[in-house]
This record gives sequence, structure tokens and C-alpha cells, in this order.
Amino acid sequence: MKSQELACMDIAALAPLIKGREVSPLEVMESQLDRIAALNPDLNAYTSLYPDMALAAAKGAEAEIAAGSYRGPLHGIPMAVKDLFQVAGMERTCGSRILNEGVANADATSVARLRDAGAIMVGLLNLHEFAFGPTGINPIVGTALNPWDLTRVSGGSSSGSGCATAAALAMATLGSDTGGSIRIPAALCGVVGLKQTYGLASRAGIYPLCESLDHGGPLARTVRDAALVLQAIAGVDPADPSTAQARVGDYTANLGKPLDGLRIGVPRDFFFDRLHPEIEAAVQAALRVLDDLGASVEEAVLPFNREAVRGWNTMAMAEAMTVHEGHLRDHADELSPDVNERLRLGEGLSATDFIRARQCQTMARAEMAGVLEQTPILAMPTTVIPPVPIATGTMMVGDRQVTGWRVLGQLTRLACFTGQPAISIPCGFTEDGLPIGLQLLGGWFEEATLLQAADAFEQATEWHKRRPPLKV
Amino acid sequence: MKSQELACMDIAALAPLIKGREVSPLEVMESQLDRIAALNPDLNAYTSLYPDMALAAAKGAEAEIAAGSYRGPLHGIPMAVKDLFQVAGMERTCGSRILNEGVANADATSVARLRDAGAIMVGLLNLHEFAFGPTGINPIVGTALNPWDLTRVSGGSSSGSGCATAAALAMATLGSDTGGSIRIPAALCGVVGLKQTYGLASRAGIYPLCESLDHGGPLARTVRDAALVLQAIAGVDPADPSTAQARVGDYTANLGKPLDGLRIGVPRDFFFDRLHPEIEAAVQAALRVLDDLGASVEEAVLPFNREAVRGWNTMAMAEAMTVHEGHLRDHADELSPDVNERLRLGEGLSATDFIRARQCQTMARAEMAGVLEQTPILAMPTTVIPPVPIATGTMMVGDRQVTGWRVLGQLTRLACFTGQPAISIPCGFTEDGLPIGLQLLGGWFEEATLLQAADAFEQATEWHKRRPPLKV
Repeated sequence: MKSQELACMDIAALAPLIKGREVSPLEVMESQLDRIAALNPDLNAYTSLYPDMALAAAKGAEAEIAAGSYRGPLHGIPMAVKDLFQVAGMERTCGSRILNEGVANADATSVARLRDAGAIMVGLLNLHEFAFGPTGINPIVGTALNPWDLTRVSGGSSSGSGCATAAALAMATLGSDTGGSIRIPAALCGVVGLKQTYGLASRAGIYPLCESLDHGGPLARTVRDAALVLQAIAGVDPADPSTAQARVGDYTANLGKPLDGLRIGVPRDFFFDRLHPEIEAAVQAALRVLDDLGASVEEAVLPFNREAVRGWNTMAMAEAMTVHEGHLRDHADELSPDVNERLRLGEGLSATDFIRARQCQTMARAEMAGVLEQTPILAMPTTVIPPVPIATGTMMVGDRQVTGWRVLGQLTRLACFTGQPAISIPCGFTEDGLPIGLQLLGGWFEEATLLQAADAFEQATEWHKRRPPLKV
Repeated sequence: MKSQELACMDIAALAPLIKGREVSPLEVMESQLDRIAALNPDLNAYTSLYPDMALAAAKGAEAEIAAGSYRGPLHGIPMAVKDLFQVAGMERTCGSRILNEGVANADATSVARLRDAGAIMVGLLNLHEFAFGPTGINPIVGTALNPWDLTRVSGGSSSGSGCATAAALAMATLGSDTGGSIRIPAALCGVVGLKQTYGLASRAGIYPLCESLDHGGPLARTVRDAALVLQAIAGVDPADPSTAQARVGDYTANLGKPLDGLRIGVPRDFFFDRLHPEIEAAVQAALRVLDDLGASVEEAVLPFNREAVRGWNTMAMAEAMTVHEGHLRDHADELSPDVNERLRLGEGLSATDFIRARQCQTMARAEMAGVLEQTPILAMPTTVIPPVPIATGTMMVGDRQVTGWRVLGQLTRLACFTGQPAISIPCGFTEDGLPIGLQLLGGWFEEATLLQAADAFEQATEWHKRRPPLKV
């Protein structure tokens, strides 16, 4: 097998070879590091790389497996995490000049669990500064490019996670999602991005943005691979009280099962007047695929309208402002101009504004529970537009010019507000070859069903098999 | 049996007589209404009474039991609830002139559950206006007097619930507790008051004060009676999302069991420098009783100090302000002066203030969980002073003059902030014959253990058997 072919494999396909000692974790890592060395200087997916540490860990995995101790499907798999996770031995920056934390001496809980499962951390991945923006444009550390069109954004805030996963600069990655920051780059880069239920996986050791809305979860090249990563990171963590009620499922158990009769609701009123026409067409085609698979695709009505999600905005601005109060006071001129501006939106908010937004969240959750009783899965696009050019941050939709940072999170905030799980999976490409994402939302802690639906769609389509046109 | 003797019985003693048809619910209700007619004009425990409705319900219960349908220990029992619960057919006022809701056409969930269990609602009980104060002094509808000394407060905010329960104007009552409003009147009136775990019983239909801190729960003359009421009201209610994780136990199962080895922590640093000397002496004696009962009474240290509970203050002021924004704008001059003043403390609070207070709450909960791993029960006084005179609202403690509304909630806010259950039980009297309350705190949803400890203490002491010196 040629060097970079190993790096481009799925975890689920590679794991049996590692387990059977047909391939060594060291070969895999060398393949991965070669590909990173060839492509990352252009793509800028990584903010920092730790090849020596990764090679040492790969040797350790090789020895452990040779000694008969195989940990499971993540053993020896090269992974990377967004540069706001703590990884022992690495220095996180959050894509900013402001932090000077030095080298971390402990792992974020999710990272520790991935390492316990045998995964090997290669480095830290680019992001919208402090994860506070949906484009991934980062004037501080440079922008991670979209592997499908190097003039376009990879989406944010987990831009490097999307880029690296799509370009096979890691086999799977972790990102974080406060309003779409996993699913947007997944959609824009043509990979799978899963924001699990609020409280299912720990945020301990992830630099916070909005405590009530933050999630840390996987991006991968297949639904199955995302399920494997979720399985490793899910569960109660005393260091993150939001996980106290976590109910962990078996996330690969339902993969491959038919969708017979599964009711999938499409809340057209929620999104349909804003879509880029190529996204509308791709999502319509995707719904037909789901219907052909035996699901019952039907209209759904969200009893709260888009305006209710404005509560997301108030909560997000208030909580982000609270986290970054000191940075705004002492380091405002070192922040990306757009992040500085967006953080200041939280400045005038009163306690009453926040409390009312939280009441709106409680109501939206209750109303969503009613919707899910009818249709346990909801389907919609992940984003209303494909990736915008980095240079302008805007694009035309019909005769309207739309601004990326304003519209990219429109359809993803909802699941952060309600806390329910949501996944973005590839469902097509524009004529220009830009990826399009289908978003599925499920019930709280019902990831097994959500992944089943996503996997069935993936198995019935070829979109996830296309690879970005990168010259190596 | 003479008329008022029935009204003065415990539920647990009376229920078998009703079940066995030795006593009819109608006789019980007539006894109850006679006693109310004799005493309430002075005590002012009720803001409104519905004797005809109560008698009709008692006749219905009599017929039902005669027909062989006995519902359980609350069947035919006269009860009353704080005048902020919705009771179908009654008009709540929240002890205010501002509301004009008219007659309610539905019950609060807790009231509906009590009625399903057979309890009969007699009327609505006095309170500190809108439940926002710990003394119960109410210049709008008049103050419920303390049955042990008619010149003193019965405590707030559930003043009428404390007064009516102690004076046997109802067999048990519901109050609400945001910072001590069940436990303070229970302590000051010499009865049992239980604030269950946040999220164990529904608040739907209770006029809100502070969404994150409000609880509706029982006051009764014995621990067992409180357990019977809790059993009826506990459980998930879709109308109150905070109950989604409610774990209901069997609250009478552990009563009478010995306390051998139960570790009871006493966090002296948390309270000991502020106590009225007679309260200190009574609580010390109570701790010796628990020790004699086989419990292991030991020092406990709360890793957060009193200052952490200031977060309670911020949350309470902000949430109360949000509820009453319109009242402050349009009806400020109709509010009790102290309530008007206290509500305005929330006016300047920012979203960041609120979010930091909530972070403080999360931390306090986590740290409390660590404390409870060592000592699953904590013991302390309920209040630092006995009931203050209504006329002044103040009293001397040694050479310091203390103000009732400032200090009465000092030791009760903690359990509202952490959400853990807490109970106040009678543990003695001052030389002047004023009741003293012992407060026990337990683990989340561990009410069965908390009630076991409280019941063991009650069985070993006579305090709960004393009756207020009321002339009938």
C-alpha cells in the first residue's frame, strides 16, 4: 500500500488491519504525517503539530498491539482536535494571540477518553478565533482553506477540523459546536459532523464560549467513524456537571438497519425561503432517497418560529461576553475585528434579557419534544449557502447578496438551543464542486437512531466517497 | 370524640379511622371548619375560605368511602395551600392587591395530585406578598400571627401555612420555598416543613418568584404526615420541565428504621457565630439526641463559605425582577414597601452578573456533592433567631439588634441554591415558649433518608407534641 493511501482510509476499514497486525500504527502515522507535511502548509488546517509525540505514541501502540493488547477500533488511529481542547504536551491558542497558557499538563476529558481508546493526537486544529464565528476566517493565525476550493472558507468555527477531516490530514477530529461550529464546517467541507445531545459528552478542558450551548463532538469521513468517536467520548464526567444525566447508547448497534416506517419530519416553514437553489435541489433529492429507503418523509411544523431562536442569540452573546469580559477590557485590539465586534453585542444585556431567553429555551425544548413524538427525526439543510469566498465573505443567492457570517448558522443554532443531537452528512455538490450538507436532528440521547438514519442515507449514496481535488 | 379533637389529629392517626369508617370525612371537615371559625379571625392564617366547597367535597369523600373506594391516607383530609397555588374554584391573590385573576378554573399540578389522593382543599393561606420575604409581615392583607405568641411573626413567606398547620387550622398545608419560605415558618411555628429536591415536585400553577430556586412542598405536624403529602405530589409533570429527571422514592418506607452509623455532618463554620444563644443550646441538645440514636454526628466543612450563597441573592433578585417587571412599572405604589424595595435590588443586574451567579451555583452543587459523600445528612439550625415581634421586626441577640428580614433566611438559602432537600423539625423552645427548628439537609432525591433521620429524631423527642396556647 502506498504511503498516503493509509491516511485516506476510514477508521472502520483500517481498524481490522491494525487489529490483525496487517498494518502497524507506525506505518499509519508515517502515512498521516507525510500527507500533513505535503498538504498542511497550503491548507493551514493545523495551528500546531507534534509529529515526534505522535510517532512515539504510534510506536507505543504498535508495541502494545504486538503484545496482544488491542484496545478497539480507535487504537493507533491518528486524530486531531480543535485548538481549544487541552491536550497534555500541547499548547492551545484558541486561534488567538491573547492566551499564553503554555503547554498543557492534562488532557480535556474527551481527549483523555480518546487516548484511553488508543487514538493518537497529531496536533491542534485551526478555528475561528475563540470559536466565535461561522466562517473560520481567522486574521490572527490565518484561515484554514476549503479543500474543495482553496479560495473558499472551510466554515467555522471548527474550520481546521472540517478541513483536516476532508483532506485526510487526520482520520477523525473533534470540534466544538455552540451554534453550528461542528456541522457548518462538516457541511462546507463534505464530511460528517455530529453535535451530540447537550450533556452527553464532557466539555471539561474545552475553552468555553457559551456554557449553556457548548458541545464538543466528532467530525469524520463516515457516519460509522463518527459513531466510533462518539462512543469513546460519551458519558458522565464529574468535571462537567452538565453530563450528570448522560445516557450513553450503543452507537454502532443500529447501523445498517433499515429505516422502515421511521418518520422523518421536514419543517419547511423553518427554512425554505432562504435557501441557495442548489442546496434546495440537493436536499430535495436527499429527502427522496430517505423516502425510497422506507422512511416516511412528511411535513413537520415547528410550533415556535425562527424568532424563538433569537433567544439563542441573547444567551450566546451574554455567555460569551461573560467568558471574554477580561479580554475585551485588556486585549480588545488583539482580537479579530469581527470577534471583537460580536463579543460587544453582549455588553448591554440585562439579567432579565438573559432570563427571558432561557425561558424561551425551556419552551422551545418542550415544544420540540412534542414535534419529536410525531417525527423522531427532522431533516433540513445544514447551511443555506455553500462556502463563501474567503476574500469577500459574501455570495449572491439569486439577486440578493448574502454575508457568510450572518447566514451560515441560521439552521444549526436550533439544535444548540434545544440541546438535541444533530448531524450533518454530505448530500451533494454544487455545479462548481462545492459540498452540500444534509442536517438530521433527533431526540435527546437518541443518537443511535439519528446515526442509523444518517448511515442508511450514506450507504445509499456516493457523496461521502468523493475526495477533494488536492494535488499531493 | 369532641368536635375539635378530630381537627387536631395527625393524618397518620386519623386515616385508619376514616378508612375503617369509624370517622366520616364530613365529621372531620365539620371539626376543621369549626376550629377555623373559632381561631382564624384572630390568627389570620387564611386569606380566603371555601367552606361550602369543602363540605361538599367531604360529603363526596364520605360517599366514596362508604361505597368501598378508599383512596389512601389523604382521603377526606382537610388541607389548604398557600395563596399562590391555583385551586379550581378559588381566587388566588398572592397576598397582593395587584392580581385580578378571578376564580381559577384549574388546579396547580400539586393541588390536583392531592385531590386525586382524596385530600380536600379548605382555602388559601396567607403569605408574605408574592412570597418575597422571610417574615410574613403583610401590610396588604394583614399578617398571619404566630400561634405561640400572637405578637410575633409566623415567618415567611409561607406564613399562613406555618400558622394554620401549627394551630390545626388544616391537617397539612403546601407552601413554597425559594430561600427558606417553607422551612422558616415551620421552624417559627413549631411544625415540620419539607423543601424537597429541586425538580421532584411540579411548580406548574404556583405563581413564580424565582424559576431556578422555587419549590412547592409540604408543612405538617409530623414527619410522617409530611412524607405522605410529598408522596402524593412528587413526580414528573410535563407542565414543569424542571421535573423531567424526578426520581420518586418511597417516603414512608424508612420511617422507624434505626440510624445506626448514619453520618450526620455539622458545618459549624457555616453558621455558628450568628446564633441566638437559645437556638444554639437547643440545636446542640438535638445533635446529642441524634448521636444517642446511633448516628455518627461529626464536623463537616463546606468548601464554599457563606459568601458563595451570595450567588443565591443575585439569582433571586434577577429572577424575581423578571417576573415582576410589569408590576414594578405599573403598580409599584400598591406593593408592600419592603417587597417594592427588595424587588428593585434586581434592577441594575447585568446578564453577566446572573451568569456568574449561576456558575457559582453549579460549583456549589458540585462541592456539596463531595460533602454529602462523606456525610449524607447535614444538620444545622433552621433560623438563627426565634420569631421577631410583628411590631418591630427586630430583636436583640446578645448586645446586637438584628432585623428579622435580613437574618431569617441565612441558613435556608443554601439548600435552595444547591437544590438539595432540606427539612425543618421542632427541636425545642425558648424560655418564652417560642419554637426552635432543627434543619437537616440531604442528597438530591434522597428524601427517604432525610425523612428517616427526621422521623427518628421526632420519635425520640416530645417537641412535636406540644400545642400552641390557643384559647378556643
